Amino acid sequence: MKILVINPNTTGSMTEKIGVAARAVANPTTEIVTLNPNKGPVSIEGHYDGAYAVPGMLELVRQGEAEGYDGYVIACFDDTGLDAAREVARSPVIGICEAAMYTAAMLGTSFSVVTTLPRSIGIIEQLAMKYGMERFCRKVRSAEIPVLALEAVGSDAACRVRDEVKNAIAQDRAECILLGCAGMTDLAQWLSSETGVPVIDGVAAAVKLVEALVGLGVTTSKVGSYSFPLPKPYIGDFAQFQPQ
Amino acid sequence: MKILVINPNTTGSMTEKIGVAARAVANPTTEIVTLNPNKGPVSIEGHYDGAYAVPGMLELVRQGEAEGYDGYVIACFDDTGLDAAREVARSPVIGICEAAMYTAAMLGTSFSVVTTLPRSIGIIEQLAMKYGMERFCRKVRSAEIPVLALEAVGSDAACRVRDEVKNAIAQDRAECILLGCAGMTDLAQWLSSETGVPVIDGVAAAVKLVEALVGLGVTTSKVGSYSFPLPKPYIGDFAQFQPQ
Amino acid sequence: MKILVINPNTTGSMTEKIGVAARAVANPTTEIVTLNPNKGPVSIEGHYDGAYAVPGMLELVRQGEAEGYDGYVIACFDDTGLDAAREVARSPVIGICEAAMYTAAMLGTSFSVVTTLPRSIGIIEQLAMKYGMERFCRKVRSAEIPVLALEAVGSDAACRVRDEVKNAIAQDRAECILLGCAGMTDLAQWLSSETGVPVIDGVAAAVKLVEALVGLGVTTSKVGSYSFPLPKPYIGDFAQFQPQ
Amino acid sequence: MKILVINPNTTGSMTEKIGVAARAVANPTTEIVTLNPNKGPVSIEGHYDGAYAVPGMLELVRQGEAEGYDGYVIACFDDTGLDAAREVARSPVIGICEAAMYTAAMLGTSFSVVTTLPRSIGIIEQLAMKYGMERFCRKVRSAEIPVLALEAVGSDAACRVRDEVKNAIAQDRAECILLGCAGMTDLAQWLSSETGVPVIDGVAAAVKLVEALVGLGVTTSKVGSYSFPLPKPYIGDFAQFQPQ
Amino acid sequence: MKILVINPNTTGSMTEKIGVAARAVANPTTEIVTLNPNKGPVSIEGHYDGAYAVPGMLELVRQGEAEGYDGYVIACFDDTGLDAAREVARSPVIGICEAAMYTAAMLGTSFSVVTTLPRSIGIIEQLAMKYGMERFCRKVRSAEIPVLALEAVGSDAACRVRDEVKNAIAQDRAECILLGCAGMTDLAQWLSSETGVPVIDGVAAAVKLVEALVGLGVTTSKVGSYSFPLPKPYIGDFAQFQPQ
Amino acid sequence: MKILVINPNTTGSMTEKIGVAARAVANPTTEIVTLNPNKGPVSIEGHYDGAYAVPGMLELVRQGEAEGYDGYVIACFDDTGLDAAREVARSPVIGICEAAMYTAAMLGTSFSVVTTLPRSIGIIEQLAMKYGMERFCRKVRSAEIPVLALEAVGSDAACRVRDEVKNAIAQDRAECILLGCAGMTDLAQWLSSETGVPVIDGVAAAVKLVEALVGLGVTTSKVGSYSFPLPKPYIGDFAQFQPQ
Repeated sequence: MKILVINPNTTGSMTEKIGVAARAVANPTTEIVTLNPNKGPVSIEGHYDGAYAVPGMLELVRQGEAEGYDGYVIACFDDTGLDAAREVARSPVIGICEAAMYTAAMLGTSFSVVTTLPRSIGIIEQLAMKYGMERFCRKVRSAEIPVLALEAVGSDAACRVRDEVKNAIAQDRAECILLGCAGMTDLAQWLSSETGVPVIDGVAAAVKLVEALVGLGVTTSKVGSYSFPLPKPYIGDFAQFQPQ
Repeated sequence: MKILVINPNTTGSMTEKIGVAARAVANPTTEIVTLNPNKGPVSIEGHYDGAYAVPGMLELVRQGEAEGYDGYVIACFDDTGLDAAREVARSPVIGICEAAMYTAAMLGTSFSVVTTLPRSIGIIEQLAMKYGMERFCRKVRSAEIPVLALEAVGSDAACRVRDEVKNAIAQDRAECILLGCAGMTDLAQWLSSETGVPVIDGVAAAVKLVEALVGLGVTTSKVGSYSFPLPKPYIGDFAQFQPQ
Repeated sequence: MKILVINPNTTGSMTEKIGVAARAVANPTTEIVTLNPNKGPVSIEGHYDGAYAVPGMLELVRQGEAEGYDGYVIACFDDTGLDAAREVARSPVIGICEAAMYTAAMLGTSFSVVTTLPRSIGIIEQLAMKYGMERFCRKVRSAEIPVLALEAVGSDAACRVRDEVKNAIAQDRAECILLGCAGMTDLAQWLSSETGVPVIDGVAAAVKLVEALVGLGVTTSKVGSYSFPLPKPYIGDFAQFQPQ
Repeated sequence: MKILVINPNTTGSMTEKIGVAARAVANPTTEIVTLNPNKGPVSIEGHYDGAYAVPGMLELVRQGEAEGYDGYVIACFDDTGLDAAREVARSPVIGICEAAMYTAAMLGTSFSVVTTLPRSIGIIEQLAMKYGMERFCRKVRSAEIPVLALEAVGSDAACRVRDEVKNAIAQDRAECILLGCAGMTDLAQWLSSETGVPVIDGVAAAVKLVEALVGLGVTTSKVGSYSFPLPKPYIGDFAQFQPQ
Repeated sequence: MKILVINPNTTGSMTEKIGVAARAVANPTTEIVTLNPNKGPVSIEGHYDGAYAVPGMLELVRQGEAEGYDGYVIACFDDTGLDAAREVARSPVIGICEAAMYTAAMLGTSFSVVTTLPRSIGIIEQLAMKYGMERFCRKVRSAEIPVLALEAVGSDAACRVRDEVKNAIAQDRAECILLGCAGMTDLAQWLSSETGVPVIDGVAAAVKLVEALVGLGVTTSKVGSYSFPLPKPYIGDFAQFQPQ
Repeated sequence: MKILVINPNTTGSMTEKIGVAARAVANPTTEIVTLNPNKGPVSIEGHYDGAYAVPGMLELVRQGEAEGYDGYVIACFDDTGLDAAREVARSPVIGICEAAMYTAAMLGTSFSVVTTLPRSIGIIEQLAMKYGMERFCRKVRSAEIPVLALEAVGSDAACRVRDEVKNAIAQDRAECILLGCAGMTDLAQWLSSETGVPVIDGVAAAVKLVEALVGLGVTTSKVGSYSFPLPKPYIGDFAQFQPQ
């Protein structure tokens, strides 16, 4: 099967890191392709960044549908544009936040999230509510680091994440920890070993869940909320993106 | 005070109708300006349409901030891009769905929503959950009409809306009715008279609520979720939209 | 328009302070009248006080309806008697707790409340639940001061409120702060300036919201929960209050 | 033990009926006293009626405390003034709505309520939310009868209640039925027999629960929400009711 | 009336202690019989223990039904096997966790639970959610003691419980405290005196509530979830337990 | 990888059918073993049946751990004994109800469940609440057939399930349908084709999800709720099952 993992920001090094993480867990028969949009923000820290990441991400999904991909992963912990992507794809689309949360819900009775900046706390809390996970979610914590600090050589970002993971285990009694940013994908294994608690990277979780859905033979429901966009004119710079 | 009412789709006749509704309720000292983006879909029926409506809408908000607007209304019942707009504006920003819901919550103990297409039901239900209004919301109903049928001469769209409003009152025991599309803005008064029940148009409600917030002297909280977008590079076609 | 702002306790100095706050934000064309009952408790600190505040407050609302008021504000953060007031009034009635909460919900994704005595915490938490705001409400905090301390010359009540507001911002990550007592109405502007966070006074918020509803031309729903009281005998001391 | 069962309306025949029901289930060693206020509405149909029932009811509770009652039942399905009564009493106070709901929750996984007028539906739904019972409560139904029809000779009120009880069982799959008015207290046994489903009368349920609490030796918590009213002046007609 | 109080673990000394607590609060006309299964774990600390406690407990209930018991108490704070017991009994069955929670909900607006081991926290939180009590439940706390430490002579278990009760009052502002283990039944009175706050033992609470239900004349609903098990073959070691 | 799929009832033909379904979706490198207990009920219709299914099921899990299985599926839609199984296994354990619900939540915004007997409705509703899925779950419907009718030659059970599936799509606007019994596993593909809506069989979904978790390298959290059972004596017939 062929899975398209989309990093919705435009930082190539993060796309590569995501690809490494995705391939590390994918089945041998799964072909992982990783892409990022050719327009938009270098990192997604809030709703505004997200708004300019989505159009490029959706182009990739539509192109993916044309090329016959079997499933998609949106590799940003805000699950940016997930609902829109589901409208244009018949193949399943998974966000890394929802993937991490449902995974955790099958491994323990509670989890905490460690994300980058405080501004993302509200977004993730709203996603937890949307997915029915607020009763599992003990706390969303911020390591107080910008996303791209995770890409920087010599940064202490990883240590800050580790400290906050330990706080979550000790203070929240969280039974699982979610890494709340695609850029933390390389830290999961290390932190699981360090703490003895399942530390879940959404990228890897989403790859496995989309493989599961594809293997199950199910596709996105096309009655109701996720039915295909209706054909209609789009004008101006976005004319080319109008649904047919 | 100067309020910018943005129709996030690109259909000028709807923008005009929205303007009429907005001015009809605005205070005499309020200047209402109505705009729509110069790119994007002619109507918003689902998340994909919304994704291509948001960038143009955000440009208008940023431009509005530069020009000193006191507040903003996003005139689409999906509250498309509302969170992102709040990040870029210090002045208050109101979505017409939230405006209609909070208004209804102060007039009765329950409401039902009558929207256009069935595909919008899920979106509006999720908004109700996000705003804490799911306990007031009896039912989201669809009149089974496309958005632009509301613009068409000789259409029976208005009658279909009326029928569904009456169903909501009789079957859901809803104490208020919300019109779930900006394009229904001209039907509220007629339907209130017909039914004797408060029928709330989100456009008018949002104009009055944003006037209220401006008059109160409050602005969007800039700590946490709605703090200003962080300066960073945006690349490609969206480079011009990067936050400074 | 003519708005009646009712202080449901019988302390005239607080009624005056409320009037100052109300007029400070009201539109120039709004006539604000402030009244308090001629019977009942000098402050409302708990349900028992509330029970003896309501009958006098309702008399004022009924009298207001006879005199043609366009809207009402109940200026006690317990929203004392709000549902009953809505039954007797066709014009909109707003409680200052609900006004503050819905206002905050349009400015940020979370709020904390700073009230007077610990005994009010439970009441306010129950109101948050009733209004669907428990998911926005981080914490209800008490400044550990009696209501009338806010009226006393030389009291350190204001400082205690300020300290608790700062605790709420730092410890709860609250994006807005609500002042949980009508007697704090004069502190909002000062505390907003001190903290850089929206600090919302319910009195002012309710005045603006009731102006908005009146301007919108909507009235309390008279089907279902808030239909007019049924004509029936009341006996004894309350005979004069029986609905006709 | 000595239990005071208060009918908060002023209709003596209903007080007597309530007394019969209470005594029918009370332990032999329990002395049941039934009283109603000497002022206020002849029936409670909505919040306004409730507001004028509460002061007289509270007088009876305070008097009860002075006379050493061991517990109290508020015999109106709106649980009118329950929180205020708990403040003035150290002995436990039970509302018949909460009693019926918690009883049902221990006998099945769902219940429906059959009440009198449609206007009470919203009140009872809000109580279900307050008590955490909204997930057990399938539906609140109205038999479309005024409260005092239950007292009228030759009325078909009982038959209407029965029909609605049967609808609730058939259509809601409710596993228990609650009679949503103290005036229906004499119908419970008949309807249980007719339907084979537990039909719960709140008056009887509350008597048994208050006996249970008294027998358990517990009293209302006096820290926080239900601590005694603070001593303070009440003015005017209510001066005599001020807490000492 | 004749009530069977079942300690679902196999530790006789705990069964005896439970019996003492039950008899201490039972009505003089209530005959309390206490039993424990003849197979299964000596204490219930988690779901696995619970799974092997339930079959023996259910045997006792079925035997109880044959012998004409009027009601049952399951004396483990996990409410182990409660739903299954309700299927086989027509007489009411009460779990001590639900009994304690509903009791607390009638005495205050919040409670905290003090249980034994941290592993029980998640179970009790899930029960609170199931019973609709999560909005009353401030926190579930662990005294970090194994269940049988409560039986051991010279143990400091009681002191640890007391310390945690005091923490709950001070830090959670809990208005009632629930003792989250049947083995703590002898501590309730002492801790109530020490703290001045209602400290509720589920065993005593459940005895009084089951007396209440029996006195009310209600039985478990036999339509829907708790209808009698259907006759069918059980094979192997459990053949003897098949429903007839 | 080696996955143990446990049918917790003792009907071999159902175990075989489950095995066929499991193998049909499993990865080629996954070895599926299907087993059922050697003691207990021939079908699970309610909590009592469940209670006697769990001990035998847990024996199989423990044996599975000894034999080095990588993951487990509990193939009963009540998710019978799931929490207990998670305590004894380090490898992930998935229930078919939770698997179907989380799968549906990634394919649409709502689902309805079609189960066998009405008595299972309450159980499944409680599971939806436990898993946070009540906001996705439109309705739990019963096809009014006993579980083993699905095994009987010439039964009209399949047609009844189909009719109810169609009702759910038409009346509930459900975007996905869950088959609420492991015995319906062979109907999913047919019903998906018939209706054009994703019809999800929990057995297949759980097999894919457990493969996903195993492939992800995560294991059940062993801090808190699902830590290993503590070593302790079990007495009588269950002595052999005591944790070491």
